[in-house]
Amino acid sequence: MRIVQKYGGTSVASVERIQATAQIIKAELDSGNEVAVVVSAMSGETNRLLQLVNSMSDNPPMREVDALVATGEQVTAALLAIELNKLGIIAYSFSGAQAGFKTEGNHSKARIKDVQSDHLIKHMERGEVPVVTGFQGVDEQGNTTTLGRGGSDTSAVALAIAVKADSCDIYTDVDGIYTTDPRIEPNARKMDSISYEEMLEFASLGAKVLQTRSVELGMRYNMPIHLRSSFDLVEGTWVTREDSNMERAEISGVAYNRDEAKVTIKGIPDQPGIAAAVFGPVAEADINVDVIVQNVSEDGQTDLTFTVPRNDYDATITLLQRLCEKMKAREVLGDNTVAKVSIIGVGMRSHTGVAKKMFDVLAQENINIQMITTSEIKVTVVLEEKYVELAVRSLHEAFGLNHT
Amino acid sequence: MRIVQKYGGTSVASVERIQATAQIIKAELDSGNEVAVVVSAMSGETNRLLQLVNSMSDNPPMREVDALVATGEQVTAALLAIELNKLGIIAYSFSGAQAGFKTEGNHSKARIKDVQSDHLIKHMERGEVPVVTGFQGVDEQGNTTTLGRGGSDTSAVALAIAVKADSCDIYTDVDGIYTTDPRIEPNARKMDSISYEEMLEFASLGAKVLQTRSVELGMRYNMPIHLRSSFDLVEGTWVTREDSNMERAEISGVAYNRDEAKVTIKGIPDQPGIAAAVFGPVAEADINVDVIVQNVSEDGQTDLTFTVPRNDYDATITLLQRLCEKMKAREVLGDNTVAKVSIIGVGMRSHTGVAKKMFDVLAQENINIQMITTSEIKVTVVLEEKYVELAVRSLHEAFGLNHT
Repeated sequence: MRIVQKYGGTSVASVERIQATAQIIKAELDSGNEVAVVVSAMSGETNRLLQLVNSMSDNPPMREVDALVATGEQVTAALLAIELNKLGIIAYSFSGAQAGFKTEGNHSKARIKDVQSDHLIKHMERGEVPVVTGFQGVDEQGNTTTLGRGGSDTSAVALAIAVKADSCDIYTDVDGIYTTDPRIEPNARKMDSISYEEMLEFASLGAKVLQTRSVELGMRYNMPIHLRSSFDLVEGTWVTREDSNMERAEISGVAYNRDEAKVTIKGIPDQPGIAAAVFGPVAEADINVDVIVQNVSEDGQTDLTFTVPRNDYDATITLLQRLCEKMKAREVLGDNTVAKVSIIGVGMRSHTGVAKKMFDVLAQENINIQMITTSEIKVTVVLEEKYVELAVRSLHEAFGLNHT
Repeated sequence: MRIVQKYGGTSVASVERIQATAQIIKAELDSGNEVAVVVSAMSGETNRLLQLVNSMSDNPPMREVDALVATGEQVTAALLAIELNKLGIIAYSFSGAQAGFKTEGNHSKARIKDVQSDHLIKHMERGEVPVVTGFQGVDEQGNTTTLGRGGSDTSAVALAIAVKADSCDIYTDVDGIYTTDPRIEPNARKMDSISYEEMLEFASLGAKVLQTRSVELGMRYNMPIHLRSSFDLVEGTWVTREDSNMERAEISGVAYNRDEAKVTIKGIPDQPGIAAAVFGPVAEADINVDVIVQNVSEDGQTDLTFTVPRNDYDATITLLQRLCEKMKAREVLGDNTVAKVSIIGVGMRSHTGVAKKMFDVLAQENINIQMITTSEIKVTVVLEEKYVELAVRSLHEAFGLNHT
């Protein structure tokens, strides 16, 4: 088997962690597999470098910021290669440019165009280990670029695809994806596997274990991603193509997000273009709108309610009050103590009544649902934040996810 | 004028120092000159990275050590470019590879083969500032290489030659070369200029202000080097081709080195090949031999005396005692409290009797000379360490070097 392993910042945070990581790589080689490794910067290092920049300039050229922060992964890659050589393993570090990561030129959020890593395959076939810096590449002019925060996951999956690996193993400080947050529901179970689509839904709800772009890339090229812990070498969760042969449970997991606020603009004269009139300025202010509900029009007026990240609540209220006057709407209301709870699962495609069951469960607990939004494999409700734990536990049990 | 400036570790040691350095560059541009900059790592950073390596491995692959330490200059280059942009100056950082420094593949002490920096000239002609990492390059296979300690001086001179600069200005924490050490002789004068040959002699005596290779390179391509302080913007010392039109003083300066020990192997049976028999094993032990004196043979026996760095004294004695038995020599003597004092100057080529005058001066002070060695532009004596200050002051005055 040929495997690309990726180690995040906590897995290379110190000399001791790098040594432990080298032992995991050695065990993989000893079991007869070919290995290439992608590494992040030591945890804290990227922030340290960015603080240096911020102490100098409010508006630094992004080309230089990229050149600067890219050194973080280069340090880790060289140190890990040194440790592997100490264990008798021939290993070479490669910067993004050296590893063949060709990107577009948009600094700090470059997209990968191509990974030209045939030279790395030669090393792997000889039992040698290429250690590649994640998060970075090089544009057509030879400038160093970075892929943006969390980009190392994307680097790893892209490399796995390029070297035709059998899997991409993402080592991190959690041991997998759980049916829900174990801090809320102790009976939460670690999933053996999850589909790319479900993983994307979990990620969009703030599960920070895997970068969205890396999941999309894995999905497009059908690269199995094994999300697992470098601190506890048990099987983690496989992110793979949906297995159509398998009998699916109704839902795979329950997710939630407290980082929500709700705003309403009431009594807007209902005429074509009001959504654009509201959401245009909101988008310009770089505020991410999530759940949106527009009431049925009544007396030529309508209400528009949507959620935004809690951090943007104040800015959104200010902005809407200005719009309210301009559009001659009635008033602006808001609530920054709401939360989202979602049930997710490809199984709901073939099980009818999943949404109804969810509403019933919440009604039984006397939890009022403020907003609802659905996708093919997800139902999300917005509710008062104080009900989050109760809602999560009730749904987790009602849909048969509890550990037995 | 087109100028390459080089800033050492103390000139970029902190955000504040980088800001001060950016102001010097701005002043140079404002005076109408084109500028490219070569930077070292922040002082202490290279050692910090090497300590990380040493905490991991006694025998790290040098390819990886090079990849690791090269990040030190990359950080400085990006930070300085960011600061320059803040001042309204368009500046770009370049790694050794990006700047076109092609080297041989011998890691940690690579020699520069070629500097392909035409793309940097284009930036300079537009008034933009390329900020290039010193100390590093890239070999034919694309591996990062480093030039060895102090290599940034060599990078700077090589870049100055490649971009056809008018001068290479080396900014450091001293403001020039002095006729002798001002801590010993308060009347020491800063030299306005010094020839490459003299500078090489001063450097060989432990003047650590300029790397020997950079002086040799400057001499070969006739690139004027201006050694000056980034802390005090006065004129420094120009290292240039010897000016034949100028009336030269007998000597330019007095140098000394306390880091000396003297060893003697006595009563060696005088036969062909004894020098090789002694110095072969010494060289193999990586001990640098400096002044050598072989006595005239007497009764078929001879004595051999030479100096070594004081750190190598014990090892040398041990080694010679073994050789002494093997060669059936009489005995090994040693003294690790000797020092070297030299007078240096291209002027002595045209002034006769300079050596005799030196010996007279020392004799007047009752200083015993233990060994003598001469080159075309230098006379060196070995003497008891306790006489160093007296010898330096007497010679400095006798040869008319005192500040008036």
